[in-house]
Amino acid sequence: MIASIDPRTGTTAEELDVPAEDLDRLGERARAAHRELAGAGRGGRAAMLRAMAAALEERRAELVAAADRETGLGPQRLNTELTRTAFQLGLFADVLDDGAYLEVTIDHAGPTPMGPRPDLRRMLDPLGPVAVFGASNFPFAFSVPGGDTASALAAGCPVVAKAHPAHPVTSLLSRDALLAGARAAGLATDVVSLVHSNEAAARLVQHPDITAVGFTGSLRVGRMLADLAAARPAPIPFYGELGAVNTLVVGRAAARARGARIGEGLAGSFMLGVGQFCTKPGVAVVPSGADGADLVRALADRVAAAGAGTMLSERTAAGYTEGVAHLLAAPGVEVLARGGEGPAEGFWGTPLLLRARPDALAGPLLEECFGPELIVVEYDTDDDALAVLRRFGPALTASIHADDGDRPLAARLLDHARRTAGRVVWNGYPTGVAVAWAMHHGGPYPATTNPLHTSVGASAIRRWLRPVCFQDVPAELLPGELRDDPAGPDRVPRRVDGAPVAR
Amino acid sequence: MIASIDPRTGTTAEELDVPAEDLDRLGERARAAHRELAGAGRGGRAAMLRAMAAALEERRAELVAAADRETGLGPQRLNTELTRTAFQLGLFADVLDDGAYLEVTIDHAGPTPMGPRPDLRRMLDPLGPVAVFGASNFPFAFSVPGGDTASALAAGCPVVAKAHPAHPVTSLLSRDALLAGARAAGLATDVVSLVHSNEAAARLVQHPDITAVGFTGSLRVGRMLADLAAARPAPIPFYGELGAVNTLVVGRAAARARGARIGEGLAGSFMLGVGQFCTKPGVAVVPSGADGADLVRALADRVAAAGAGTMLSERTAAGYTEGVAHLLAAPGVEVLARGGEGPAEGFWGTPLLLRARPDALAGPLLEECFGPELIVVEYDTDDDALAVLRRFGPALTASIHADDGDRPLAARLLDHARRTAGRVVWNGYPTGVAVAWAMHHGGPYPATTNPLHTSVGASAIRRWLRPVCFQDVPAELLPGELRDDPAGPDRVPRRVDGAPVAR
Repeated sequence: MIASIDPRTGTTAEELDVPAEDLDRLGERARAAHRELAGAGRGGRAAMLRAMAAALEERRAELVAAADRETGLGPQRLNTELTRTAFQLGLFADVLDDGAYLEVTIDHAGPTPMGPRPDLRRMLDPLGPVAVFGASNFPFAFSVPGGDTASALAAGCPVVAKAHPAHPVTSLLSRDALLAGARAAGLATDVVSLVHSNEAAARLVQHPDITAVGFTGSLRVGRMLADLAAARPAPIPFYGELGAVNTLVVGRAAARARGARIGEGLAGSFMLGVGQFCTKPGVAVVPSGADGADLVRALADRVAAAGAGTMLSERTAAGYTEGVAHLLAAPGVEVLARGGEGPAEGFWGTPLLLRARPDALAGPLLEECFGPELIVVEYDTDDDALAVLRRFGPALTASIHADDGDRPLAARLLDHARRTAGRVVWNGYPTGVAVAWAMHHGGPYPATTNPLHTSVGASAIRRWLRPVCFQDVPAELLPGELRDDPAGPDRVPRRVDGAPVAR
Repeated sequence: MIASIDPRTGTTAEELDVPAEDLDRLGERARAAHRELAGAGRGGRAAMLRAMAAALEERRAELVAAADRETGLGPQRLNTELTRTAFQLGLFADVLDDGAYLEVTIDHAGPTPMGPRPDLRRMLDPLGPVAVFGASNFPFAFSVPGGDTASALAAGCPVVAKAHPAHPVTSLLSRDALLAGARAAGLATDVVSLVHSNEAAARLVQHPDITAVGFTGSLRVGRMLADLAAARPAPIPFYGELGAVNTLVVGRAAARARGARIGEGLAGSFMLGVGQFCTKPGVAVVPSGADGADLVRALADRVAAAGAGTMLSERTAAGYTEGVAHLLAAPGVEVLARGGEGPAEGFWGTPLLLRARPDALAGPLLEECFGPELIVVEYDTDDDALAVLRRFGPALTASIHADDGDRPLAARLLDHARRTAGRVVWNGYPTGVAVAWAMHHGGPYPATTNPLHTSVGASAIRRWLRPVCFQDVPAELLPGELRDDPAGPDRVPRRVDGAPVAR
């Protein structure tokens, strides 16, 4: 039996009776699903993803109600997240229709300085069944029906999903919706399976039928699973989206011109979703003295006026309490503002605004604290601002607020941000991650375990694909997209004899 | 002092006095080179790669003489390999000129079902300094001036190369040639550095300034280094091109029609370069009975007529001797033909043709034996042929010889090959790996440690790049390729608002 806990009360709201988790049977079913997804082709998989999006929409009320009861995130946020999740399935259907993701490359036979070259045709093929670990903080968009699952299914890889223990009912309902969509599109196999236990999770990462892993979660668990994946007899790619300290720096001119507005925006960003975002800004580097005063005051006012928020689980709330305790015990740290306390029952977190001396940046101050907490660090000179930023490791995002008057510093900040973060946000806040062709959600370790790839955006599909080259294979045995005169939908953006062809 | 051994005599031909290997200074220099390579831009790096190719050509006689003395591969092969190496540098210059490798993706700001989307612009940036481990068997093409170095430099990543101990002088001369090319193109920093010791090699993989590793070599050493890379405090990508057993299967109709010709071609392929190729066919799956007789006879005749060949090093020759001993001791194995013995001095290997019973395929018969050895396995039915292939793990290549009469089997073979190998070769031999846009040289473990990427061909550059997304960054601060109206060479193939644009 698996308990579904209501974080608003801290009590068990429901108990799930889940079947025994026979990973060998799951492996066998995933292999069958792999064959069916390949047979469906790009068109069949695009139709399946769209049917899955429709199936989620049909079950919207039930899904949002379950997720709200399990996460406390509230119907408004969860409705938006479900819309995003359906939109994301549609984006990967578009990626399939487009076909450029196959990286079709054709070199006809011909002479070279080293002698004749054979006919070579390269494209990307699905890796095979993959494991997807759902995150606590996005029960839809980064969980069972989320970006890892959508991109893997698009690639042709069946998914064995590990439900996050903070929302087992939502995970089950989501899996059912995805399978209903698959059935509606004519697929008979279990293209998505579900496991719940931590024991099954570890075995999944080590399972010979699993060819890659997508994970969104904590550094501790992510690194543990990444190490398991690397230590397999045959290691497999592990895409861990972990998290780090997202920095936000404000130029002196920008702070003077609109410090209060930036402070308000920043307060909204770091307290959004009770600070439970991997893109939450964790440190604000702001000008010292009068230039930064409006900004810090606006931040402090917003925090002092904010109430406590329900956190995702007992573990999340306890982790936040512990993280805050470490921060408060660190030398050189003072409290600027504190939000309200929560009720006697349930799991909640109090918003907290701290200030740290630049020379105190060490230990817990350099680590992610998951929850509604922000540290302000003040700088005097441009060099001081950069020195503060250099104390922090790589991150998913780096945000810069700058006006024309900040330009000498701004260029240096941009250069630093580009080298250390996956996404550079200009005069904005990092907590929104758009689902788009150009999005990158990643970064060097510990932001992720693999800096080459993204977990959001169209190119997330690349994680589940490997190249295959066909040398002198007869046209009638080639995949349609690799033929010289591809028919209709097989005519994808490609490169022929070194030159790009749009379609 | 480092000994340069002549494998034809087994004696030390020269001793190198190499400077102390101060990895901290190397790291510092590599960071400076990283900045200079970025500043040079795509155009500057393309000019540098072409100047490097010219510098290799200028030193051709000296380079080939050194490599011949250190590897025994002979001037003809080494001249071809040097031509290939220079051509490869030129291919990556072409990749830079083309610019599609940047994966430029632009989404303008606009509405979405989840609210307004910011302006998002994505491209790929260099990871940073990388380590490249030279292979024993290609002193140019897979060593200091080889594909890993060329693709990394193209990406903008300086290289710290580990010289293979089988050819230290060639490595040093190659490094000097590359730096001469860099100087001629106006670059002042050490874009390529060199270390020799195994101790430095291990420390290099763990060095905080190193951001990725390219390796070509044995499964044993490759896995050891891959494990080091994965166990770092901050793990980095490790691209190990290791090797496995490349299969070649011959349909019954093809064997009947041209068995002798296939046998001759196959004999040439597995004995090429004294069998010291990671693409060497290791097992031939041929029809039993009269259909396969011509093929096996032609193979055996060629092998019996072949002399022993000089191998790369004492370790290579000893490894081959040991591998052959394990094969000969395995049950169900018989010798079909054996080539001549070598002289009393030096390191050499004798060509060997074995036959194994299908039911004997286990242990050493399923592992790579690096040297001029081939195992023939006979099959009766189509199912038997596939059962034999399924005994073997993934590999860099899978070759199929088939005529029209083999078609029902051929389609099944192709399907199996596509799922288990990086390159499928039709009616040909796997030992030639063309340098081309469409080449893929890779495969699932143990062929490589990372199935997503290639070490040969234009897309090898992708290994050294990570995405960066610019959100709402002002046009004047964007890289040229990300602007709306890119100037001249900045106008690269890209995707704008979801639609591919060829240029």
